[in-house]
Amino acid sequence: MEHLKISSAQRIIFEAISTLDTEQVALEQSLWRVLAEDIYANRDLPPYDVSAMDGFAVHSRDLATLPVTLQIIEDIKAGDMPTLPLKTGQCSRIMTGAPMPQGADAVIRVEDTLELSADTVQMIVSVKSGHDVRPKGEQMHNGDVVLKAGAEITPGVIGILATVKAAKMQVYRRPSVAILSTGNELEAINAPPNPDKIPDSNTYALMAQVQALGIEPVLLGIARDDPAELEAFLKTGLEYDVLLVSGGTSVGVHDYVRPTIEKLGVSMKFWRVAMKPGHPLAFGVRHAASDALVFGLPGNPVSSMVCFEEFVAPALRCMMGHQRLFRRTVTARLAHAVKMRPGRTEFIRVQLTQDETGFIASSTGTQSSGVLLSMARADGLMVMPADCTGLAAGSQVTVQLLDGTAFQNDINFRE
Amino acid sequence: MEHLKISSAQRIIFEAISTLDTEQVALEQSLWRVLAEDIYANRDLPPYDVSAMDGFAVHSRDLATLPVTLQIIEDIKAGDMPTLPLKTGQCSRIMTGAPMPQGADAVIRVEDTLELSADTVQMIVSVKSGHDVRPKGEQMHNGDVVLKAGAEITPGVIGILATVKAAKMQVYRRPSVAILSTGNELEAINAPPNPDKIPDSNTYALMAQVQALGIEPVLLGIARDDPAELEAFLKTGLEYDVLLVSGGTSVGVHDYVRPTIEKLGVSMKFWRVAMKPGHPLAFGVRHAASDALVFGLPGNPVSSMVCFEEFVAPALRCMMGHQRLFRRTVTARLAHAVKMRPGRTEFIRVQLTQDETGFIASSTGTQSSGVLLSMARADGLMVMPADCTGLAAGSQVTVQLLDGTAFQNDINFRE
Repeated sequence: MEHLKISSAQRIIFEAISTLDTEQVALEQSLWRVLAEDIYANRDLPPYDVSAMDGFAVHSRDLATLPVTLQIIEDIKAGDMPTLPLKTGQCSRIMTGAPMPQGADAVIRVEDTLELSADTVQMIVSVKSGHDVRPKGEQMHNGDVVLKAGAEITPGVIGILATVKAAKMQVYRRPSVAILSTGNELEAINAPPNPDKIPDSNTYALMAQVQALGIEPVLLGIARDDPAELEAFLKTGLEYDVLLVSGGTSVGVHDYVRPTIEKLGVSMKFWRVAMKPGHPLAFGVRHAASDALVFGLPGNPVSSMVCFEEFVAPALRCMMGHQRLFRRTVTARLAHAVKMRPGRTEFIRVQLTQDETGFIASSTGTQSSGVLLSMARADGLMVMPADCTGLAAGSQVTVQLLDGTAFQNDINFRE
Repeated sequence: MEHLKISSAQRIIFEAISTLDTEQVALEQSLWRVLAEDIYANRDLPPYDVSAMDGFAVHSRDLATLPVTLQIIEDIKAGDMPTLPLKTGQCSRIMTGAPMPQGADAVIRVEDTLELSADTVQMIVSVKSGHDVRPKGEQMHNGDVVLKAGAEITPGVIGILATVKAAKMQVYRRPSVAILSTGNELEAINAPPNPDKIPDSNTYALMAQVQALGIEPVLLGIARDDPAELEAFLKTGLEYDVLLVSGGTSVGVHDYVRPTIEKLGVSMKFWRVAMKPGHPLAFGVRHAASDALVFGLPGNPVSSMVCFEEFVAPALRCMMGHQRLFRRTVTARLAHAVKMRPGRTEFIRVQLTQDETGFIASSTGTQSSGVLLSMARADGLMVMPADCTGLAAGSQVTVQLLDGTAFQNDINFRE
């Protein structure tokens, strides 16, 4: 069996997949989706010069000699249009966002004035022309492309979509995802406890990793090590865009997954990826009316979760049109020395703290891939390159953030 | 009007709020919620010593002299119990996760052996006792607290919950949130375009910021600057745990929000917070059978979004039981010089790139708080302390990550 580099395995996966088709969603359902169309401004915004502050619209040349008393000729609220042009010695009271009156070129904040009466105000500061005025079209000009296809719909993007009154928009479809666990040793969450069995955690950890990407997966359950049962489950799973199978891809002689899945028309590649925890990993495609992708993940819970982050999450995000496919990395200093047997890229579960110089990474404890608590406690995965034999306390390291859902364009770590 | 520090305003908010009551959710609906109960292990896991690899269960002392040929006496699959104890010179074929047979103390990986026949195998490496064996209880011991109340339910935590077969659990309730925009100048998303109006983007940007925290808000729409209309809207809004009102909290004379909201029994505090963009900000509580919190946010779209991140998001997360309330910060180097007028903490919208030394921050362009595109393009908010007069290119700065949803315990920037 081949021993692949992480980047090589990723490249094979990316070559086999493509962005899915598009669908229309309402603005209210669009958060974290990816735009599949360019979005244009449908007006100048602001539609005219407006005040950036609550205060008084003035002509700056009237403030050349201070203090000066001006006559207030009008009150302009946001949403009103001014009716009176300013003459020398005049000003209008104006609210933030309200249109500037004719003859005014600047705004004096209300805090910088002394109101003498209902219709006179003393100016005590001078300003340049344009001060605290938002010029027409500052935010956008009619016809501008304000958002390009491929943009992720963040809260700020939703603000822009609302600004151009895009109540619906085309986005890339999300893949349908099915999850299957395999193995006679597994006990379903609703099954009576049997001391000789192992509870099936992979189904749910993978479910949550998929949910964290905004996809609601279908849980197929547990397939026993029986060719007919496995075939029935796999057949169902291949009706989805992506099938995640955990367990059953090892080199052991009791493995029915490989022959069964190949019998169903899936062209599978089985790899040992040079990473720890991780290998073995399988990936395959069944080309049909709509392609089905299959990922075979290790049965070990930590390995399964790490493989998901390194291979499945980037693939699912790519299918949804994202440009940011990889977990956000940060640099950190190592809180303690770490020994390592070189040969495979190692992902060490770490907690992060901060001081004035940046992040400090410390191991979550045992790194046994059997101990899922190490993953539950982790803020990130510290990446130890394959040629590393160990690092001293204080060394600079790269950590993939696991908390929350921040992604970046490049994988940005050395294997 | 007071000029408050950001941290002072946050402290007043935190003193007025508390964690909400709890509710039961199913494991499938629990992602990113916060546990409101301790979770215990309900068995030893693994329930006995198991193999960590596919290979052969041996006694390490049989491998003292190499090579050595051992007799294979049994095949042990995961989910099976071994039936034959090993004698000297014997081994059993064993799968990952399968129980170790009596008389075995180590596992030799299948790759490190030469199979001579169906029932003999040659060992070519020696190992220590315990090698590639996961000891009974390595993952958890029966009765251990495996997760504490207050833990955020991440994918790793969901794996642990599934491991102890917690199909349902108590979590802190999410607040109900209503969003109201105010101002005659605003145009609803479904209203016909009027060139003299400004589209209401705040409702949707705030909606998305609330959704990003896992809460589906109720959108109340736009209240005109009319006391009766405003009162009716605010009354409805106060039926929710949290009401967000944007616009109408300025010092202008046309402001009906303050008197109307106080008339409805809300004890309001109005502040100018020493930040840019940002002020003015209002915060109030109406104590009743269930308390209602009101946040008055600036009408300006960028200011409203920044105030949400600094004040509303931490409050909502606190109510949901989170310990990590503040946006994740990273240190970055500034790509270009930045000038600043000291006096207020400034949040500059930046894009982040990376090189081998870490993050590089560069401005998204105009920092006018009228330009929402600067927010849509931002990866983060660079925090310029209030006493700063400017920074040279290459200076170390603190950036709050806006992409995705990563949070930390402390605010971790200097105001």
